Amino acid sequence: MFQVSQTASPSALPAFLQKRPVMAGYQRTLRLDTNRPQAVVHVLGTSLKTSLNRSAPPSSKFFSVKCTPSVQYSITPPPQGTSHLTPIPLQGNSVLLISMSQASQEENDSKLSVCYYGENKKVLGIAVLHLTAVEISLDVDADRDGVVEKNNPNKGSWKWGSSGHGAILLVNCDSEPTYQKKPDCQEDCTPKVSDLKDMSLMVLRTKGPARLPSGYKLTMHISQGDAESVRVFRSRIPGVQKNTLQQPSSTVVKDLLRVLSIDVLSQDVPYVGGTAEMNFYVEGLRFPDKDFDGLISISLSLLEPISAGLPETPIFTDKVVFRVAPWIMTPNTLQPMEVFVCSTSDNNQFLKGMNNLVAKVGSKLKICSEDVNRGDRWMQDELEFGYIDSPHHWFPVVLDSPRDGELQDFPYDELLGPDFGYVTRIAKRKDVSSLDSFGNLEVSPPVTVNGKNFPLGRILIGVAFPTATKGRNMTKVVQDFLWAQKVQEPIALFSDWLFVGHIDEFMTFVPAKDRKGFRLLLASPDAGYKLFRGLQKDGHGQAKLFEGLKGQEPVTLDEILNDKSLQAENNYVQSCIDWNRDVLKRELGLDDDDIVDLPILFKLELEKKEEEEETYRAVAYYPDMVNMIVLGKSLGIPKPFGPKVNGRCALEAEMCSLMEGLGLSCTFIDDFASYHKLLGEVHCGSNVRRKPFDFKWWNLEF
Amino acid sequence: MFQVSQTASPSALPAFLQKRPVMAGYQRTLRLDTNRPQAVVHVLGTSLKTSLNRSAPPSSKFFSVKCTPSVQYSITPPPQGTSHLTPIPLQGNSVLLISMSQASQEENDSKLSVCYYGENKKVLGIAVLHLTAVEISLDVDADRDGVVEKNNPNKGSWKWGSSGHGAILLVNCDSEPTYQKKPDCQEDCTPKVSDLKDMSLMVLRTKGPARLPSGYKLTMHISQGDAESVRVFRSRIPGVQKNTLQQPSSTVVKDLLRVLSIDVLSQDVPYVGGTAEMNFYVEGLRFPDKDFDGLISISLSLLEPISAGLPETPIFTDKVVFRVAPWIMTPNTLQPMEVFVCSTSDNNQFLKGMNNLVAKVGSKLKICSEDVNRGDRWMQDELEFGYIDSPHHWFPVVLDSPRDGELQDFPYDELLGPDFGYVTRIAKRKDVSSLDSFGNLEVSPPVTVNGKNFPLGRILIGVAFPTATKGRNMTKVVQDFLWAQKVQEPIALFSDWLFVGHIDEFMTFVPAKDRKGFRLLLASPDAGYKLFRGLQKDGHGQAKLFEGLKGQEPVTLDEILNDKSLQAENNYVQSCIDWNRDVLKRELGLDDDDIVDLPILFKLELEKKEEEEETYRAVAYYPDMVNMIVLGKSLGIPKPFGPKVNGRCALEAEMCSLMEGLGLSCTFIDDFASYHKLLGEVHCGSNVRRKPFDFKWWNLEF
Repeated sequence: MFQVSQTASPSALPAFLQKRPVMAGYQRTLRLDTNRPQAVVHVLGTSLKTSLNRSAPPSSKFFSVKCTPSVQYSITPPPQGTSHLTPIPLQGNSVLLISMSQASQEENDSKLSVCYYGENKKVLGIAVLHLTAVEISLDVDADRDGVVEKNNPNKGSWKWGSSGHGAILLVNCDSEPTYQKKPDCQEDCTPKVSDLKDMSLMVLRTKGPARLPSGYKLTMHISQGDAESVRVFRSRIPGVQKNTLQQPSSTVVKDLLRVLSIDVLSQDVPYVGGTAEMNFYVEGLRFPDKDFDGLISISLSLLEPISAGLPETPIFTDKVVFRVAPWIMTPNTLQPMEVFVCSTSDNNQFLKGMNNLVAKVGSKLKICSEDVNRGDRWMQDELEFGYIDSPHHWFPVVLDSPRDGELQDFPYDELLGPDFGYVTRIAKRKDVSSLDSFGNLEVSPPVTVNGKNFPLGRILIGVAFPTATKGRNMTKVVQDFLWAQKVQEPIALFSDWLFVGHIDEFMTFVPAKDRKGFRLLLASPDAGYKLFRGLQKDGHGQAKLFEGLKGQEPVTLDEILNDKSLQAENNYVQSCIDWNRDVLKRELGLDDDDIVDLPILFKLELEKKEEEEETYRAVAYYPDMVNMIVLGKSLGIPKPFGPKVNGRCALEAEMCSLMEGLGLSCTFIDDFASYHKLLGEVHCGSNVRRKPFDFKWWNLEF
Repeated sequence: MFQVSQTASPSALPAFLQKRPVMAGYQRTLRLDTNRPQAVVHVLGTSLKTSLNRSAPPSSKFFSVKCTPSVQYSITPPPQGTSHLTPIPLQGNSVLLISMSQASQEENDSKLSVCYYGENKKVLGIAVLHLTAVEISLDVDADRDGVVEKNNPNKGSWKWGSSGHGAILLVNCDSEPTYQKKPDCQEDCTPKVSDLKDMSLMVLRTKGPARLPSGYKLTMHISQGDAESVRVFRSRIPGVQKNTLQQPSSTVVKDLLRVLSIDVLSQDVPYVGGTAEMNFYVEGLRFPDKDFDGLISISLSLLEPISAGLPETPIFTDKVVFRVAPWIMTPNTLQPMEVFVCSTSDNNQFLKGMNNLVAKVGSKLKICSEDVNRGDRWMQDELEFGYIDSPHHWFPVVLDSPRDGELQDFPYDELLGPDFGYVTRIAKRKDVSSLDSFGNLEVSPPVTVNGKNFPLGRILIGVAFPTATKGRNMTKVVQDFLWAQKVQEPIALFSDWLFVGHIDEFMTFVPAKDRKGFRLLLASPDAGYKLFRGLQKDGHGQAKLFEGLKGQEPVTLDEILNDKSLQAENNYVQSCIDWNRDVLKRELGLDDDDIVDLPILFKLELEKKEEEEETYRAVAYYPDMVNMIVLGKSLGIPKPFGPKVNGRCALEAEMCSLMEGLGLSCTFIDDFASYHKLLGEVHCGSNVRRKPFDFKWWNLEF
């Protein structure tokens, strides 16, 4: 029944074998045994390599090879001018390379034998291999199109960019409805059907006989290091054929099994005979951070039995790589979806203003009631909205600040839910300062800096000067988290000069049709003084700021402009803002024409320090117009209560003139009593959840 | 005295300015003030940018600019066809860019003024700048030639490769002689003169007037994250002119000051007038690890005073980057410098053999006495020799295993010293197993794998199968350390099948003149059986192993070859070694011809496990010849006590024949009673400190 194979050199291997990816076990050393026949399982796409000399009986001089048609082999060094049926001279380095081109229908349905001959062509021994071929492929969506393709040659590595490859994993940090709410990745029980879409599908494709030869088995495994970042589930019922990331039907998943987790680094998975696909669901558990680059490997091995008391040998390993999706922030240039504010006993006026604005832009206003906010109105400071994205699914994720004011439970209790994720970083109480409020955490629109693209913009935070021997800082755990996300490389600005210390007190971004698609707005005392001096020169020196405000003495322009101390304070403030201006120009690649200076004055307040040293820090002199809310082309700006000129507030008029040139409309919202007097403004008191970027983060080039 | 500068456009900036590196403060926004003259410090290589419009008095329509010859300026948009002496029309976006080309001799020795005019060319105000120019450069050996060059444009970043750049730092882990020995980087007191060569020189070069204008100062600073990895010292006497890494004279350093450390992230450094150089000494404190990529930045800023209670503003920052040198292992192909063994009450025979061998190769034998080793003879297992290297200095560094047998104090007490560094990783007792002995940690000679060069070879460790649900492993802290060194990318082999569990029980490397410069030697039961069967066939079946050994029953070849169980055990061992062979071929890019199979048999021993489950693991049947010591072309091989054929041990004869073909000489050392019977051999009982690679690790390409 044996035939000589027609393929006698490695270059004659079937094309599909040459195209298959290089696998961990692609060439396996096999021992021949002339004492007894061996049953061998062969994995398609690999080859078996055997030293002909090593197992030859003593005095062997020649050998011949026979096999069934399903088996291909080659001999090196290639025999000179002999038919393979004729005994071939045995050399010290004679090697036989064996492969097969299709999966076996039955166990041991293929065969290869090597016959050894002595000096006089006398048969000294025959080594017989009974071969079973199986096809095994652990598959993921390595080409990032939302569908798990078959055996992608790049599935075992990860590369950034539009021509890159590698599968993507979400941190399953939203919360399916359960009795006691927590992020799904912290749940210990079996996931629900609705949870599977937050995981990445991984398919084990196999082809072969109905059963593997006795003792052989498939094992899925992860490293100890990866195990704290990932879990793998599968359906209890094997043989599922779906391989897209559509919502699986409830019958399929009603019985999910946990395969791998922090406690189980390795587990057997069933082999299903014939042509089979088994779905696995891979769940990310943690975001990239200082000690985690976001990459995770999952392997599947075929194990060969040895005997009791001895570990099975992996004879083939297939590996896939995932990267955990980073947490991404959304700049002001993205469309708003929901606006969040707090209701307090004293902010009715503000709420009315916000309600009108939000209604105008057709967005949704969500009001956090007083029993939840307990009087903490700083919606901006407690949390930052972002999102995570993959080719198959995305959802918003709130980053909860370690600030933890009275609003501290809002992100977890009110936002975390189905398709709304939650992440936080825990800091020691003593390490948390006002700079940890997320009014001090912003993100720029997309920029290009010296030829380097940042299509998702760059994160901005405020800290003390790097040269400061003391000073407040954003806590290290949050900074480490932000830097580790990698796709919106952060920039550290100087905000410690401000009493409250948030970068949103001196800067914001608004959309614009021309130039880079946006403008950077900066608070500018110089612009304020310039405006006021012009008004004074035009005879409006007696015009008053703060007119008609309860509990606030009005002040004339002349009084302001004659206040030498205030001028000196504002010179200092301008130099602090200019320092940031220089950094922002450099790090965002901006020109002066990309920046608009807003007329805003500050004043310095004495801060009592523990060390009894006097420190002065800045607060806005009148409502800080740059601290605005940006909803598309509509701006909600703190009403400045500036000097009236010809019946109109000169600050509002200047602001409108500057913004209308960019095609933006200004709505001034009275936040004087309820926010400004408490050292915050419209932006501090609101938060906006925005649409994600169209640009996909995995298309970034590094 | 004022003259109009001849350079009126940025492209006309002096060439040296255009060549200077992009600095953190290279373009600084400056406010003009028509109310009072300003004193401004300018740093050469940067420019001052000022908005002409922002500070213009109301109604200004024109301006003109005058300056001393030392000052260059340009105006954008460029004025149309007017002399600069004629008033130029003021536009909304008019910008003045100011720079200077050489350091000031005296404070405020340069001047620039801007005059503003109204409609009828009436002067409305003059802004006057008194300028002081200084040159500041924080310098390191960024081109890696052992000398600190001046203002290398690449000093602020780090790039691998022979065309790369970036300075290098050693972990100061050796120990200068002190009262109580510890690694220098753990010393709290001021370093000694002899310690400076272990640090990297950093030079602050300044040029300018005798003093900086009042209140200005220089500050050196590091980030919180870097502060745990680096310290910076300087001489108390400023103005040192040395800039090579020669041994500094004792007068220079007798008074060292600590500038930066974990407790001091920022500190003022003196400004020395005229042309000055000040030496700083930078000390690495920790090796790259899982949470530390090895990169460290040090910055120097020029601070401008504001007023009491306000932080000084950094107006210029220069930055340098270091990478901490990785710990590098030395393969068998490097020349031996010292050989270490233990003296015990029962190993006289072994010591004699080692002494002869070491004398023959002209190396030094260092014997650890019994009062130090307390009977622990496994010199290989307690420690691994390596080294750290930089362009200016290198020294050996011992990695102390968490194994901690009776030899545990030897690396610290006996090896750590001047120019001999020490590093260890602390593991929990329960996480430490036999696989943490460094007989399980080896390194290959240089290899090229699929076109990728590993000129420092690759580290090899032994673990359980990745698929194993249980099994021993090298502890995670050591694995993390090894991977983080990056320059000898580790390979995990399977060694848990061995009773002792060390990779040196089945493999080693020896030098060879041909092919890749080395051979991989593998223990091979198949080769053993082949040899023995041949001998049996030739009539030597009654030849005995273990003849003349006390307490060891001799056994005939016939008995061995008839033992079916032993054959089965060795088949299993061969399959384990073959698994490793496949990995080694793949990961080191080896062909079969790069590998030599040594005739070595194993047997399985029952290991009693806590869970009362039976586990069998392998030990060598006769002295394990692959567990040899390699000293140049001389091999010290465990004497196998094999069957005598024609008066000569057939195993020794086979071994000699295999090795002599490679130009290597074999010395057989009797370790039977004192090592083999205790489950170790020559390699386990010795250790070799070798010469470092000629290849410099920073020339690696990634």
